[in-house]
Amino acid sequence: MRILLINPNTTASMTATAADAARRVAATGTDIIAVTSTMGPVSIEGYYDEALAVPGLLVELAKGEKAGADAAIIACFDDTGLDAARALAGIPVIGICEAALACVSFISQRTTIVTTMERSRLPIEHLVHRYGMGTRVKVRAADIPVLSLEDPSSNAGERLRAEITAALRDDRADAIVLGCAGMADLTAELSREFGVPVVDGVAAAVKQAEALVTLKLSTAKRGAYAFPVEKPYTGILEGFRPKAISA
Amino acid sequence: MRILLINPNTTASMTATAADAARRVAATGTDIIAVTSTMGPVSIEGYYDEALAVPGLLVELAKGEKAGADAAIIACFDDTGLDAARALAGIPVIGICEAALACVSFISQRTTIVTTMERSRLPIEHLVHRYGMGTRVKVRAADIPVLSLEDPSSNAGERLRAEITAALRDDRADAIVLGCAGMADLTAELSREFGVPVVDGVAAAVKQAEALVTLKLSTAKRGAYAFPVEKPYTGILEGFRPKAISA
Amino acid sequence: MRILLINPNTTASMTATAADAARRVAATGTDIIAVTSTMGPVSIEGYYDEALAVPGLLVELAKGEKAGADAAIIACFDDTGLDAARALAGIPVIGICEAALACVSFISQRTTIVTTMERSRLPIEHLVHRYGMGTRVKVRAADIPVLSLEDPSSNAGERLRAEITAALRDDRADAIVLGCAGMADLTAELSREFGVPVVDGVAAAVKQAEALVTLKLSTAKRGAYAFPVEKPYTGILEGFRPKAISA
Amino acid sequence: MRILLINPNTTASMTATAADAARRVAATGTDIIAVTSTMGPVSIEGYYDEALAVPGLLVELAKGEKAGADAAIIACFDDTGLDAARALAGIPVIGICEAALACVSFISQRTTIVTTMERSRLPIEHLVHRYGMGTRVKVRAADIPVLSLEDPSSNAGERLRAEITAALRDDRADAIVLGCAGMADLTAELSREFGVPVVDGVAAAVKQAEALVTLKLSTAKRGAYAFPVEKPYTGILEGFRPKAISA
Amino acid sequence: MRILLINPNTTASMTATAADAARRVAATGTDIIAVTSTMGPVSIEGYYDEALAVPGLLVELAKGEKAGADAAIIACFDDTGLDAARALAGIPVIGICEAALACVSFISQRTTIVTTMERSRLPIEHLVHRYGMGTRVKVRAADIPVLSLEDPSSNAGERLRAEITAALRDDRADAIVLGCAGMADLTAELSREFGVPVVDGVAAAVKQAEALVTLKLSTAKRGAYAFPVEKPYTGILEGFRPKAISA
Amino acid sequence: MRILLINPNTTASMTATAADAARRVAATGTDIIAVTSTMGPVSIEGYYDEALAVPGLLVELAKGEKAGADAAIIACFDDTGLDAARALAGIPVIGICEAALACVSFISQRTTIVTTMERSRLPIEHLVHRYGMGTRVKVRAADIPVLSLEDPSSNAGERLRAEITAALRDDRADAIVLGCAGMADLTAELSREFGVPVVDGVAAAVKQAEALVTLKLSTAKRGAYAFPVEKPYTGILEGFRPKAISA
Repeated sequence: MRILLINPNTTASMTATAADAARRVAATGTDIIAVTSTMGPVSIEGYYDEALAVPGLLVELAKGEKAGADAAIIACFDDTGLDAARALAGIPVIGICEAALACVSFISQRTTIVTTMERSRLPIEHLVHRYGMGTRVKVRAADIPVLSLEDPSSNAGERLRAEITAALRDDRADAIVLGCAGMADLTAELSREFGVPVVDGVAAAVKQAEALVTLKLSTAKRGAYAFPVEKPYTGILEGFRPKAISA
Repeated sequence: MRILLINPNTTASMTATAADAARRVAATGTDIIAVTSTMGPVSIEGYYDEALAVPGLLVELAKGEKAGADAAIIACFDDTGLDAARALAGIPVIGICEAALACVSFISQRTTIVTTMERSRLPIEHLVHRYGMGTRVKVRAADIPVLSLEDPSSNAGERLRAEITAALRDDRADAIVLGCAGMADLTAELSREFGVPVVDGVAAAVKQAEALVTLKLSTAKRGAYAFPVEKPYTGILEGFRPKAISA
Repeated sequence: MRILLINPNTTASMTATAADAARRVAATGTDIIAVTSTMGPVSIEGYYDEALAVPGLLVELAKGEKAGADAAIIACFDDTGLDAARALAGIPVIGICEAALACVSFISQRTTIVTTMERSRLPIEHLVHRYGMGTRVKVRAADIPVLSLEDPSSNAGERLRAEITAALRDDRADAIVLGCAGMADLTAELSREFGVPVVDGVAAAVKQAEALVTLKLSTAKRGAYAFPVEKPYTGILEGFRPKAISA
Repeated sequence: MRILLINPNTTASMTATAADAARRVAATGTDIIAVTSTMGPVSIEGYYDEALAVPGLLVELAKGEKAGADAAIIACFDDTGLDAARALAGIPVIGICEAALACVSFISQRTTIVTTMERSRLPIEHLVHRYGMGTRVKVRAADIPVLSLEDPSSNAGERLRAEITAALRDDRADAIVLGCAGMADLTAELSREFGVPVVDGVAAAVKQAEALVTLKLSTAKRGAYAFPVEKPYTGILEGFRPKAISA
Repeated sequence: MRILLINPNTTASMTATAADAARRVAATGTDIIAVTSTMGPVSIEGYYDEALAVPGLLVELAKGEKAGADAAIIACFDDTGLDAARALAGIPVIGICEAALACVSFISQRTTIVTTMERSRLPIEHLVHRYGMGTRVKVRAADIPVLSLEDPSSNAGERLRAEITAALRDDRADAIVLGCAGMADLTAELSREFGVPVVDGVAAAVKQAEALVTLKLSTAKRGAYAFPVEKPYTGILEGFRPKAISA
Repeated sequence: MRILLINPNTTASMTATAADAARRVAATGTDIIAVTSTMGPVSIEGYYDEALAVPGLLVELAKGEKAGADAAIIACFDDTGLDAARALAGIPVIGICEAALACVSFISQRTTIVTTMERSRLPIEHLVHRYGMGTRVKVRAADIPVLSLEDPSSNAGERLRAEITAALRDDRADAIVLGCAGMADLTAELSREFGVPVVDGVAAAVKQAEALVTLKLSTAKRGAYAFPVEKPYTGILEGFRPKAISA
């Protein structure tokens, strides 16, 4: 089984962190094909960055599907471009926020997501409502720029821990979700430290992707996820002929 | 007052239809600056088209703001890229779906939106829920390709009328919203014909934009609509320096 | 265009404050016809006062419509008698709470309304839910009697500022709505002071009324807003023959 | 125990129907004091009639409380003026819609209310949502003018039965609530005929009122139901000095 | 009228407390038949205890119905086994949580339930949502083991008072519901002490049961509460032949 | 990895059907330990059967955990006793309804569950709401007794197909979930036949269980799923000493 892991920002070191997290949990026989988008922002912080990351993501998705991927993961916690990706691809596409919430829903009644910057908090709250978890899941921001997660000299770890402490005390959370692909390597450590389940979306998404492929399930094409209609796209992805459209 | 009307698809004749509708209701002293995106699909039908229309929309928005626009309207009924646009711009930005719903909320208790294609129905339902109108507003698709609205030989008008009839009878709607910028020219005619209020989003958005400008209200920049952080964007809008970011 | 502004309490000085706010934003060519109810309480604080203000409001509405008004505004933040007014009138009727929420919805994701007395907080929360804004809008009471807003020696301004401060800090509001027609003159000052958008319902309602009139939209009469059936009303508005009923 | 039953319309024969229904279920020792409002419409059909019925209702409520009533029932299915009544009175006040829903919630998972006229359907739907029953209770209108219920030559009974039949088949209702005080005398007959529980709000309200009095529970006065503040009310209930205000 | 009061835990002293509370409010002519389950846990604290209490509860319910009870009350605040009990019995069955919420809904807009242990808080929150009161009712746990309520040397009373104080201040509750059958004897005292309505579910359920019996209403058998189908039940209630199934 | 598959009814042939479905999708190295409850009803149809199935389920769960299972699946579509099971066990416990919904949420926007009997429809609707899928998922009953699924001479298959046809046409479903463990063997066939994704809960639960075990996630014990408190349980599971309690 081949699972395409797309980092929709252009920072290769974050792709490496996510790919490591993915490989640690992949089943024997699952290949993780990790790619970094070549088009868009170096990090995705808020709505504007997300919008500019989507075309590059779609290119990688279409290339990956043509190359034989069985499923795809979008490795940014705002589930960047998920609807467009599902319409484009014939293979199942999984967001790491939705995957984390699916996993945590089996083990927790009150969960808090701790994400990076305040400007990402409301977009993630919108996802939480859309995924039907509004009464069970809260979102906090630790006020950490995404790329500072890669900088050992920053106080990102400290701030993250302060928000987890607040979540357990004030939200009465019984489990924590890490709200950024760049936090994936901290999962085990934080779980030990705080004594509660801590969920990383990248790892969760790998298992959900494997599940769908094994179950032979892919995106329903009968409604809003129907393949795009062939038409001219000027000045953006112009030569682009994804399987879905060229077929 | 200068209101920028952006058609986020690349079809100039649709811009003209929308601009006519806008100018019919604009106040004395309001200039409608209508622009057609030069980047993206010829029509927006579903999630994939929407995603590819956003970068071109953002370019026109930044150019228009620099050129002195006081407010901007996004003239596609899926409120294409609205969140990204609000984060980017210092001026208020209005979607035609949200504007139509704001207007109809003052006069109707049960409204039906009639849109074009089935694949646009669920995205619009998501907007309706997000705007808090889920218990009052239903969405129907007339199964009309967007560009057929411009083709007098198509049966688009007939299908549209059939769905309005069904909405009044089966949904017990007391008002109708036309769910596509390309239907703007039919508003008055359909209202007379069916004897109920019929709302066009383009006209509604003009009045909402005028309202915000007069009230000196613009997007709150304290939360998720904060201006984008300066950072590299590779391969997309590369030379692009919107006021918000270059400042 | 003639817009009828009805103050549903009997205090003429509050009518004057609201009329000033209305005229400051009215378009060239819009006449604001401000009237004070002659029947009911001197201020509307809670459910009981609201109920006793409605008949007087309906009388002014019917008189104003007969005299040629194109739209009407109810200038009390509990949207006094709005449903009855819509059933009675052929012209559109706008409440200042719903108008403020419609305007703020285009610019803010998290809004706090600051109203006067605790007993008005829950009625306004009910409006917020009814208008579909329950997940985005909070309500606070500053514990100010309505008429103290007119008394320079009261500490009303101080209390109002204290609640705005709390809203920005504890609710993470990015915009404020002033929850009483009597606060209309403070809008610009508070917005400058706190650096966030501050919305006054009276001004908002003027622009929404102008919008509906220009768009030729009025209350849908097909459902619960159908004109009243002719029948005897004993001991209340007995000689009253509104256009709707006498027709 | 003395229970005040207020018919908020001015038709004495409807008071008699409701009083009969109330007395049939009252406990030994419970006196039903039935009064007809002397101020307002002959029947309450929609928002406008409701608004004009409230002042007369408040007068009867205050008189009844002074005369020693232990609880009050508002005998119209739109729960006319319930919030104002609760603020005014020191004794508990019960609406017949809320009482019917409280009773049916113990025995049914899917209930349909059958009311009189279409214009009353949405106001009752608003009550259903407010009382938290939106996912369990539907509302249908039989298109019967209220007073025709008293006219044996009308086809009101036939239409009512047609809607009950539709509710059992199409809504999969397992119980029916009669949505008008004037239907109270049909309860037993319809229950036998259709083989499902049929609930009348007047009878339900008597039992709920008895419950509250026995449990020594009355309206919480700590929030929005605080007693009205003393102030001038011009031209409406002018000489009126309810216990709450004069105290 | 005979009302069966089932204590679904096996502690007879708690049955006595509940029976006393029930008899204090029962109407003349109402017999309270109080029974203690002989099968299950000594106290119900959380989901596991609840599950093991249900079979014993069903046995007592079937026995009581055969012996001529007109209605049944389940005297544990998690409304133990309510759905199964309703399917089994031909007589109406009332939970004390739902009864308390029905009563308090007539007198309060913001209620807080104070229950015993943290592990019971979320199950009661689920009930609150199911009963449609999620926007009006909060739940707090006083961290009191259920049986400590019977131990005068415990600090249960003190903790209970501390949570009520917090509810009035922080939740702005205007009424309190006691969230455990074992607290029934404290109702009057706490209401005097805190000056707000305090509701006990056992007393509330007696009045609701009397209401249903007088109104001749019982569980609708048309849907999910249809009588159980006859079939083998191995190793549990094997010789058990409730009226419903053996018929 | 050892996954315990518990059939909570006592019919061994249904266990075999579910075990086959489970083994078809289990990863290499995953052992499916299928057990049939020895206590409770032969099939679970409605609330009463569910309640009597729980104690037997808990016994098998505790035995399986002691014997070294890494996760457990409850193989009945009403997610029988799921909360009690989660409180009891230290290993993760998965219901087949929640597992099916988690999987289908990644591929479908509008899903219909087709279950067996009408009396199971509302309990499953309650689950759908609890799992946050109320706006996306509908439930239909095919009016098939559970055990008839095993009888080739019944018309169960025909009725099931009729409901799927109705779901695709009237609910506009784009995917189907089979709402009974006994339908597991029909998944592939129905998916081919109808051309839409068809999801079986047993297979879905196997993949979710594998996911949680690999991710080292188990039930959060900080809230309502805390291990049961040690206390006497009379007459039910008396000698029973699950790991959780005896520890």
